[in-house]
Amino acid sequence: MSAIKTFNGGITAVQGVTASGIPCGIKKDGKKDLALLRFDPPSVAAGVYTSNRVVSPSVLVCKENASTGKKINAVIVNSGNANACTGENGYKNAKEITRLLSNNLGNLDPESILIASTGVIGVPLPMEKIREGIPILAEKLSPEGGKDASEAILTTDLVTKEYALNYECKGTRITMGGMAKGSGMINPDMATMLAFLTTDVSIHPKTLQKTLEEVAHETFNRITVDGETSTNDTVLCLANGLAGNAEIREEGEELTAFKKALRVICLELAKKIVKDGEGATKFIEINVTGAQSEKDAARVAGKVANSLLVKTAFFGKDPNWGRILSAAGSSGAQLDPLESELAFEDITVMKGGMPVETDLSILKKVMDRKEIRVFLKIGKGEGGAVIYTTDLSYDYVKINSEYTS
Amino acid sequence: MSAIKTFNGGITAVQGVTASGIPCGIKKDGKKDLALLRFDPPSVAAGVYTSNRVVSPSVLVCKENASTGKKINAVIVNSGNANACTGENGYKNAKEITRLLSNNLGNLDPESILIASTGVIGVPLPMEKIREGIPILAEKLSPEGGKDASEAILTTDLVTKEYALNYECKGTRITMGGMAKGSGMINPDMATMLAFLTTDVSIHPKTLQKTLEEVAHETFNRITVDGETSTNDTVLCLANGLAGNAEIREEGEELTAFKKALRVICLELAKKIVKDGEGATKFIEINVTGAQSEKDAARVAGKVANSLLVKTAFFGKDPNWGRILSAAGSSGAQLDPLESELAFEDITVMKGGMPVETDLSILKKVMDRKEIRVFLKIGKGEGGAVIYTTDLSYDYVKINSEYTS
Repeated sequence: MSAIKTFNGGITAVQGVTASGIPCGIKKDGKKDLALLRFDPPSVAAGVYTSNRVVSPSVLVCKENASTGKKINAVIVNSGNANACTGENGYKNAKEITRLLSNNLGNLDPESILIASTGVIGVPLPMEKIREGIPILAEKLSPEGGKDASEAILTTDLVTKEYALNYECKGTRITMGGMAKGSGMINPDMATMLAFLTTDVSIHPKTLQKTLEEVAHETFNRITVDGETSTNDTVLCLANGLAGNAEIREEGEELTAFKKALRVICLELAKKIVKDGEGATKFIEINVTGAQSEKDAARVAGKVANSLLVKTAFFGKDPNWGRILSAAGSSGAQLDPLESELAFEDITVMKGGMPVETDLSILKKVMDRKEIRVFLKIGKGEGGAVIYTTDLSYDYVKINSEYTS
Repeated sequence: MSAIKTFNGGITAVQGVTASGIPCGIKKDGKKDLALLRFDPPSVAAGVYTSNRVVSPSVLVCKENASTGKKINAVIVNSGNANACTGENGYKNAKEITRLLSNNLGNLDPESILIASTGVIGVPLPMEKIREGIPILAEKLSPEGGKDASEAILTTDLVTKEYALNYECKGTRITMGGMAKGSGMINPDMATMLAFLTTDVSIHPKTLQKTLEEVAHETFNRITVDGETSTNDTVLCLANGLAGNAEIREEGEELTAFKKALRVICLELAKKIVKDGEGATKFIEINVTGAQSEKDAARVAGKVANSLLVKTAFFGKDPNWGRILSAAGSSGAQLDPLESELAFEDITVMKGGMPVETDLSILKKVMDRKEIRVFLKIGKGEGGAVIYTTDLSYDYVKINSEYTS
């Protein structure tokens, strides 16, 4: 496998993929709110969805269609409305959108169309506006439409999140593109993470599904802004096979190369989501080692990353290791204070459960950084995990309290 | 059993209990920081402690002494320093404090003395100051010393938390007193909940321990300000038998009456802790019903109570039911959207997973209240639980980010 090369681009960096994004009036401010991805030839698809028991009907329809085994012709996404807690009607509306779009794309099978929604919860989709928007959206499809689409999936994110890369394996060049949106929540309940990945690799759908699940677990499932799991989280990967490689079905050099590249693109998009987290002033990496298992390590890292005391300490630039250790100790995972060790970047502040004398002026400089890595050893085990998170600032409270419905 | 009568008072409301509280210099602002409770006759004791794997040596010594089976002569508490992450020396210091105190109380058995600490993590106890303070503390013991003691256990709590009650059972009057401190955290890592309960009931220590565990589970374990479990949480109950009832050993009218009264005092102290939570502008009661089990109900209520989006919505007086439902759905517990129902006080806002039209002006008045009850039904099960919590305000972020170590 050749080195992975990243380049400017997004989902339409992959041959056979076109996209579009328009404002159809779901968002009151006139920003783009309807996005379309078109796959010609159609793609095999894999998906990872929210674990929330309260699920948007858009997610239900997406899962149903993704699991028919049919190749996927298009993905339609609306922002500004999550189509969640909308009951039977929400389901009918999602189905109608796939049907309308199939008509506008030359009578495709509606079940070959996936759908995702993000935005406010508990409000019916404005179907009139969507019905009017779909023909325009279909007409605007273009190989240069990736940027428009990446704008149209945002809610209150401050920046678009795109990534593209390619690599060579056994003489075939494979290209991958992706876009995502994160959780900026100036309106309530915008806590939705969406990511879309395209590639021209030829891969069996079951292999793609398994690989996406493993990679999502190590990337999108390892970020947190505020510990909230939305009703609409969706990650889709679509592979159209145009690269011309022999279809990847099982373990081997080609699957390893593909998985490695998929991990790069997912991790980069995941980090972009954290960096654009609401009110975030810092990007913090919590590395936990020495745990009894990877699961324990992730549990400790997650507890530390979501601790309000830890988050507010980072906002205050305070190297408050007591809060980190206390949060870690309360995660439920095995933690041996005598074997524990804690460092901010390369400065050890605690060892064996006791303070280590440090040069406060150097430590202060570390805490002033925009990006800070924390290394926490909690025992002698082999388990390790990394979680990416933000601090908690006044702006988080401002963004999420000033809205009144 | 007669009705439970509450009256002004605290731990020294119980005969045979004296107390004192002094400033010995642990706190830099000259506030009281050393408290003593004296039991004469000595008391049987029961304790419930933090589940944090990072445990203060003060908690370790307290647990050891409470489990010897010996009757307890005194409890000493310091605030301003948690004696946590202080290693071997922290343990030695806690032992020395019990020894010094036993000398000052007339050569009592050091193992008959319990100890608790609350305050900053990772700083050695200022033993010089404590050594000087102990004789003064012992000398000041008085039946009127409850108030001083309740002040001396506070960190950045705004108010003292005391409660007293009595009831009659089978011709005997039983009295109970209590004091607690909560989590105000202007300095870091003050996240320590301490509660001390005294009573003159005669009860077998094993029965007392079991009863305290059950009651703490339903009261102190059902409050949350920020989802943090400290290294020092301790609840102690001391019973000296002076009421003269036949020793309570097993189920029956007397145990039922005692448990009911203990529940009242613990719940009232727990609510006082929440109301004095840092930055809190509202007291919120999350009632969950219809769960598969009590555990599931508590899990859902806890997830809602600790949700940053829910907390910031309450701070913003926003009846944002979508955030509540989304948090509930992500708890991992069974939740059936079609059977779910949500109300703020008596105003139903969601039923069957869909919005219910409500009079917004009435709803606005409810959201303006200082105390708000939320009723969430999540299915057809029999399980229910209540959790008490606060909103999340700018002041929480201010209090916890402005300190720099």
